[in-house]
Amino acid sequence: MIGIFDSGIGGLTVAREVMRALPDCPVCYLGDTARTPYGNKSPETVTRYAIQDTEFLLAQGAMVVVVACNTASAAAYHALRQTFDIPLFEVITPVVETVLSLPKIQRIGVIGTRATVASGIYERMIRERDPQKSVFSKACPLLVPLVEEGWMNKPETRMIVKKYLHSLKVRQVDALILGCTHYPLLKDVVQQKIGKRVRVIDSSQAVANSLVRFLEDRPELHDKLRSSDPSCLYVTDVTEQFAKIAQSILQRNVSLTHVEL
Amino acid sequence: MIGIFDSGIGGLTVAREVMRALPDCPVCYLGDTARTPYGNKSPETVTRYAIQDTEFLLAQGAMVVVVACNTASAAAYHALRQTFDIPLFEVITPVVETVLSLPKIQRIGVIGTRATVASGIYERMIRERDPQKSVFSKACPLLVPLVEEGWMNKPETRMIVKKYLHSLKVRQVDALILGCTHYPLLKDVVQQKIGKRVRVIDSSQAVANSLVRFLEDRPELHDKLRSSDPSCLYVTDVTEQFAKIAQSILQRNVSLTHVEL
Repeated sequence: MIGIFDSGIGGLTVAREVMRALPDCPVCYLGDTARTPYGNKSPETVTRYAIQDTEFLLAQGAMVVVVACNTASAAAYHALRQTFDIPLFEVITPVVETVLSLPKIQRIGVIGTRATVASGIYERMIRERDPQKSVFSKACPLLVPLVEEGWMNKPETRMIVKKYLHSLKVRQVDALILGCTHYPLLKDVVQQKIGKRVRVIDSSQAVANSLVRFLEDRPELHDKLRSSDPSCLYVTDVTEQFAKIAQSILQRNVSLTHVEL
Repeated sequence: MIGIFDSGIGGLTVAREVMRALPDCPVCYLGDTARTPYGNKSPETVTRYAIQDTEFLLAQGAMVVVVACNTASAAAYHALRQTFDIPLFEVITPVVETVLSLPKIQRIGVIGTRATVASGIYERMIRERDPQKSVFSKACPLLVPLVEEGWMNKPETRMIVKKYLHSLKVRQVDALILGCTHYPLLKDVVQQKIGKRVRVIDSSQAVANSLVRFLEDRPELHDKLRSSDPSCLYVTDVTEQFAKIAQSILQRNVSLTHVEL
């Protein structure tokens, strides 16, 4: 099966796209809801959690693991590569490659958690590939709690998004990367506040596409993934709120299994 | 020493009052910042964390432990009492007794995290002591992230506080309990939005007072507390943001020691 993990619900936006792109491959999702969020924690702590999350998915039979959390992708991907000998996907490279493949994009904005923005990973990756691009980042630490409250369309949320995006709007970015897997749930309000002419890009589809391309070259692995156990959804803490939002993201009934890490 | 723990920074408002009331007694504070917040997690998970936090404080030599977190007080105090044979203080009883001792208070509002409000502990405790009182509660899950961002005086915060308090204002409460140790940092805006005539009460002073009264009756324990190691501040994750807010709450330079639980 395909293992996918996140600190909580955000990664479900990635899981949804992976399930759409590869409907015949069961997915094992882990949301580390007992320790969520990761975005305001240190790289060391996030790395420790990401290693435990990956170990758990491997124990469930995952043959491929997707780190569906920007904070963990930024802080822990390198450590995960060194620790585990399986195909590992993160959510940063695919979206960077997507934005660089678009025409007429010179100035790129990035929004993310405090930890993701502090890592500087987007600037580094974009400038390594194209030193001519300008990159401007902004940490938006309140957006995750707002999404987790389901406040996607409240006036307070629109005001906070507007405040966060102000500095990027002033810089006249051509594209805006949603550098957190929670943010696709705020895509409409972000698009409205940053302006219609700005391309707003999230990683979920780009990640699913890179997984599809990877499996096209490896038909044997694809066959193995197809024949694995049915999809499952694990959480380290069970709350009603999580079940409610998970259901609305995946648009199906979900059954959660509680695990302790 | 006096052990005090919280999920993160909120409990420092209690630590500050305990330090003021008992300046000769060293305090050992633990902020479980690697797993913060507790307020949106299940009672089972919060209890597990609270037991680990208490074990840690005892291992550092704490002779008295204050659960400086409403969520943990509501979910875990009973389990802590059954597990540990030391004087244990929580932050709910003292504030309930304070509010019931005030004259002309008939209708009482309570705000807190989702977990604290779901526990129903304030209603239960108040009605057990005085079945004539009316109690109205409101979960305010975004206030903790707003405080942790240092957004105490932003217009967005004022709008969100107003929205949360609306139902309590309509009920014409006479007193409002700040049922979360983060909320004293929002006391001004809460007072403004609920109205001048409403008594806004937080637990920090009431808890410190009950500790003082407890030690007045136990001079030997008080002497032992006085002669213990100097105060210390432990966190399960070190971030700049935490150090900054801790400093502003305690109004002194703080040095954080990192521990893993």
